[in-house]
Amino acid sequence: MENQQHKIVSKGALKHILTFNSSDILNERMMDFCVADFKAPEGPAGYSCKNPANVTVDDFVFSGFRMAGNTTNIINAAVSPAFATQYPGLNGLGLSIARLDLAPGGVIPMHTHPGASELLLVVQGSIVTAFISSANEVYLKKLKRGDLMVFPQGLLHFQINAGGRKAIAFASFSSPNPGLQITDFAFFANNLPSTLVEKTTFLDDATVKKLKAVLGGTG
Amino acid sequence: MENQQHKIVSKGALKHILTFNSSDILNERMMDFCVADFKAPEGPAGYSCKNPANVTVDDFVFSGFRMAGNTTNIINAAVSPAFATQYPGLNGLGLSIARLDLAPGGVIPMHTHPGASELLLVVQGSIVTAFISSANEVYLKKLKRGDLMVFPQGLLHFQINAGGRKAIAFASFSSPNPGLQITDFAFFANNLPSTLVEKTTFLDDATVKKLKAVLGGTG
Amino acid sequence: MENQQHKIVSKGALKHILTFNSSDILNERMMDFCVADFKAPEGPAGYSCKNPANVTVDDFVFSGFRMAGNTTNIINAAVSPAFATQYPGLNGLGLSIARLDLAPGGVIPMHTHPGASELLLVVQGSIVTAFISSANEVYLKKLKRGDLMVFPQGLLHFQINAGGRKAIAFASFSSPNPGLQITDFAFFANNLPSTLVEKTTFLDDATVKKLKAVLGGTG
Amino acid sequence: MENQQHKIVSKGALKHILTFNSSDILNERMMDFCVADFKAPEGPAGYSCKNPANVTVDDFVFSGFRMAGNTTNIINAAVSPAFATQYPGLNGLGLSIARLDLAPGGVIPMHTHPGASELLLVVQGSIVTAFISSANEVYLKKLKRGDLMVFPQGLLHFQINAGGRKAIAFASFSSPNPGLQITDFAFFANNLPSTLVEKTTFLDDATVKKLKAVLGGTG
Amino acid sequence: MENQQHKIVSKGALKHILTFNSSDILNERMMDFCVADFKAPEGPAGYSCKNPANVTVDDFVFSGFRMAGNTTNIINAAVSPAFATQYPGLNGLGLSIARLDLAPGGVIPMHTHPGASELLLVVQGSIVTAFISSANEVYLKKLKRGDLMVFPQGLLHFQINAGGRKAIAFASFSSPNPGLQITDFAFFANNLPSTLVEKTTFLDDATVKKLKAVLGGTG
Amino acid sequence: MENQQHKIVSKGALKHILTFNSSDILNERMMDFCVADFKAPEGPAGYSCKNPANVTVDDFVFSGFRMAGNTTNIINAAVSPAFATQYPGLNGLGLSIARLDLAPGGVIPMHTHPGASELLLVVQGSIVTAFISSANEVYLKKLKRGDLMVFPQGLLHFQINAGGRKAIAFASFSSPNPGLQITDFAFFANNLPSTLVEKTTFLDDATVKKLKAVLGGTG
Repeated sequence: MENQQHKIVSKGALKHILTFNSSDILNERMMDFCVADFKAPEGPAGYSCKNPANVTVDDFVFSGFRMAGNTTNIINAAVSPAFATQYPGLNGLGLSIARLDLAPGGVIPMHTHPGASELLLVVQGSIVTAFISSANEVYLKKLKRGDLMVFPQGLLHFQINAGGRKAIAFASFSSPNPGLQITDFAFFANNLPSTLVEKTTFLDDATVKKLKAVLGGTG
Repeated sequence: MENQQHKIVSKGALKHILTFNSSDILNERMMDFCVADFKAPEGPAGYSCKNPANVTVDDFVFSGFRMAGNTTNIINAAVSPAFATQYPGLNGLGLSIARLDLAPGGVIPMHTHPGASELLLVVQGSIVTAFISSANEVYLKKLKRGDLMVFPQGLLHFQINAGGRKAIAFASFSSPNPGLQITDFAFFANNLPSTLVEKTTFLDDATVKKLKAVLGGTG
Repeated sequence: MENQQHKIVSKGALKHILTFNSSDILNERMMDFCVADFKAPEGPAGYSCKNPANVTVDDFVFSGFRMAGNTTNIINAAVSPAFATQYPGLNGLGLSIARLDLAPGGVIPMHTHPGASELLLVVQGSIVTAFISSANEVYLKKLKRGDLMVFPQGLLHFQINAGGRKAIAFASFSSPNPGLQITDFAFFANNLPSTLVEKTTFLDDATVKKLKAVLGGTG
Repeated sequence: MENQQHKIVSKGALKHILTFNSSDILNERMMDFCVADFKAPEGPAGYSCKNPANVTVDDFVFSGFRMAGNTTNIINAAVSPAFATQYPGLNGLGLSIARLDLAPGGVIPMHTHPGASELLLVVQGSIVTAFISSANEVYLKKLKRGDLMVFPQGLLHFQINAGGRKAIAFASFSSPNPGLQITDFAFFANNLPSTLVEKTTFLDDATVKKLKAVLGGTG
Repeated sequence: MENQQHKIVSKGALKHILTFNSSDILNERMMDFCVADFKAPEGPAGYSCKNPANVTVDDFVFSGFRMAGNTTNIINAAVSPAFATQYPGLNGLGLSIARLDLAPGGVIPMHTHPGASELLLVVQGSIVTAFISSANEVYLKKLKRGDLMVFPQGLLHFQINAGGRKAIAFASFSSPNPGLQITDFAFFANNLPSTLVEKTTFLDDATVKKLKAVLGGTG
Repeated sequence: MENQQHKIVSKGALKHILTFNSSDILNERMMDFCVADFKAPEGPAGYSCKNPANVTVDDFVFSGFRMAGNTTNIINAAVSPAFATQYPGLNGLGLSIARLDLAPGGVIPMHTHPGASELLLVVQGSIVTAFISSANEVYLKKLKRGDLMVFPQGLLHFQINAGGRKAIAFASFSSPNPGLQITDFAFFANNLPSTLVEKTTFLDDATVKKLKAVLGGTG
């Protein structure tokens, strides 16, 4: 090393240690990440990238999970997503996460993530959970603190607080944009006409109308 | 060309027109496809490949759609899949198809394909169809003969015969293994305990038990 | 359910049933699709996405196949694509489709799709079709109504009307942007100099010039 | 529904509600997952799939995180992976996880995951962590309980216990097989000759030999 | 470091510096690569992986390009592939390469790679090359030593020696299994009936039969 | 052909030989490539596409490798990248390349490419090179002219001139944006505090400060 030290004298010179014919790639556009720029166009692969000169460590950090979600609601539970829309540093990186809070009696109702598989980690309490496969098999388990269960992409699953105290879990996803479709909301909380819901679910009119009333659906 | 003709005298020689240092790639293992070998292991990317020496054109051809599916059933409809499991030539090629037959009054109930987007083509009759997004928007349309509608991956959708005569459609998929999860079957046609169905769907006990009786569910 | 009904009173409240710490994801930017916005930049994964607030069901519906393509032309056939460029709802969803009309004697000449595999479905008449593999094997078949044949990505293939009446087929693709390269057009319908065509195809000068005259090539 | 009930009488009949021309896909090979079969061949996309008839819910559940890793070692820390090799249900599903235990003073040394991005969640204590980009920028942060930080694929990063008590974190990965390369182990804990380490790291001979002695390297 | 040295005393102990609850991942199945095992099944993503215990550096090294390909043939040129079939270490790694030798007058005829884009590097002599796009544009250039040109996946292209001396080039590919379809071979060097060639290429019978005779085609 | 010639009379007519119901796809937006437009937004899949009407062959050609890189520097070597940032035609096409010049004694220090596998081709001289796997195995080889070695994605590797004369090599990558992280630069040439470098690398303070001085690091 000694006889090489004289060759470089400043940090500015560092960029030229390696010779790049075409441009100075070290400090310019060589990107390993694509922090979401919500003001630029979105494409099938995700959001446009923020100029890396304006990226800071805080783009890669998310603090929204320090506090519990508010479980004072119809399901006694809260889902707090940290997807690319909430957490721009995840854009393009292939994963995301959500915090689940389940008060006693809390339930995350039947739902799917159309765009990702999910890996659930219980960090407090216990949770009964299951998914159902295309072959219509039920994979059902009671998870304790520290346990994991994986739900393959797009399949129906749910989580129920299995104990008398609050349960907390974190759900990791294989996409920064996993999506979320809660079956009851899809059936009863929009303007899909009741007659179509009935024809396509085998539910009777009274049931459909009662749940539409509860969940705010019209039609 | 003339003065080059003497250089080759037989089809056998053809293989050597281009010189390949390492092996004769033309007639050996250069594969553009991977016809499913159902007797070898399956992996995350699909079935193992049949030895190309044993592949024939019939591996790439499917004749199962010449006749209509049998619609004498609870839904007055039939879904006839040509996925990689039925059609081995599709393995690894990124697409598949199904034939839909809907008798008058026929319905393909609410369902998802966890592994693919779907492109529906109506070739006879008319069909009312819709999908519901993660944002809980309903995209609903009556399709005529020749019309197409696309259903993004993993989202709930259905098809209903909208006319007085038989309707036929073909559904293309963006995967050779799209999967199929019919919501009613997932809820009412397996051994998922009724109490769990009720807690996670907001349906009442009588409704769940009635549909379990109809669809063969236990628990 | 009963004692929970009082908790929500309107559809507006629905959005707050699940608590989202960081934003209201239900009605905002959680997208399962990316309808093409032709006025915004295009990227390697496809077109930019239209603002979901402006997306309607008609973005997901295509009616251009109701009528036959015009087969009064040199090949007595018509290819009517419904790729993302014609059908913006397909953008980012991994599949597309085209309608083929072949009058008696009609031919879709030798061609490739550089960006997708193709799944051909014959819905009227009969079609002789083949593809040729990298190993130079010919996979040739006469298809009847209802039959399917798959052509692996990038390989040469063709379709010929095999009957005395009009044939109709639909070709599904494993990409919203499959591309299309008709070999004769690539050789004879642009400004690639004849001498280069001759050197790289072994065709003689008279043949090249005759086909250039027919197909409009220069050079 | 009433007049349809007579059509089905048993769960066995359920399979035939939908007519499948070619095979009974419901109970056969329609797979949404690919639980690892460690005795069959592995491929570029992961392990071969276990026969779905032998899959149970326990393939999708992992209980290895109930107890802390043993931190009585040189780094006062433990990394407990739940990758596809330890957790076969993850195979092919695009994500995995590891538990990190850091005793007071504990350090996860500089390392990369060549095959995945990482999303770190602190569930106890506080952690100082950073990654360094290709552009040689340092993204450094002290994380508290509940905080997340994402490390883009393949980039150097580390974690240090930033408090006086034990810290626990979970690292989610965007692949079931993220890999792990600890720089010090790569340099000093194998048989890479010291002269080559020195030439390629600018470290002097004494430093290399001292660390080789500590970490068990030879050459 | 000093007070930590006593904790480890041998390379064997190294494996336990990091505590892995479930298995010793360092020396077991954590794979960053998948060297082809030609005796095990192949799948859509490539060959099965050789047991890593049997992998040596020579699996990752290829020496077949030390000598020129034999250009004494009809095209005065040679293509020497180093695809996964010839070079097992490339399996699953997303790239491959071929050596091109062009004697004076040598030509690599019109061809496509159905499975990869190509990046051509001229290391000796000069080469005229072009590709033709789906939009039927010709991109034509004479390349000198050191120049690169890229050919997008699946598009027709060719290379011609543009000087009076031997030219050498290396073609990198974006897949370990790019495939190769030489148009003349597909048309004239197999058993595709002449009548079908004629109908689908607009070539006349005499031309087709002459080239079939030259290239060994039948039918 | 003869009786078909009258049907087309000009190149302009060519576009209408095939009938496209919805638009003229031949000369409009059917793209097989996406040449980088550096002025438009970048996304996770790469740069936005230049308007194809403005694309010329020179977008696909790169001449920056005609001359050697400047090796008068600390490592007696030069890396000249032709990534998408330098070579816009590569954008979206899945591969890129770099030229390596190593003067006698030249070294490309320990580094990784977080986003791509690398395939090294020696075209002059001889090179000693190795990579180290996640399992901490060293794969070490001396390469001669014409030899290839592949380095799986994200793993540490280096190159050393193994002869007394200049060596030249070309490194192909499986991505247009492979990234480059030189370990010494990441440790010693930025503002990562010395105390953190020491804690996470086991290097002593004197060593860290000496190398920081050489390479321009602060903190």
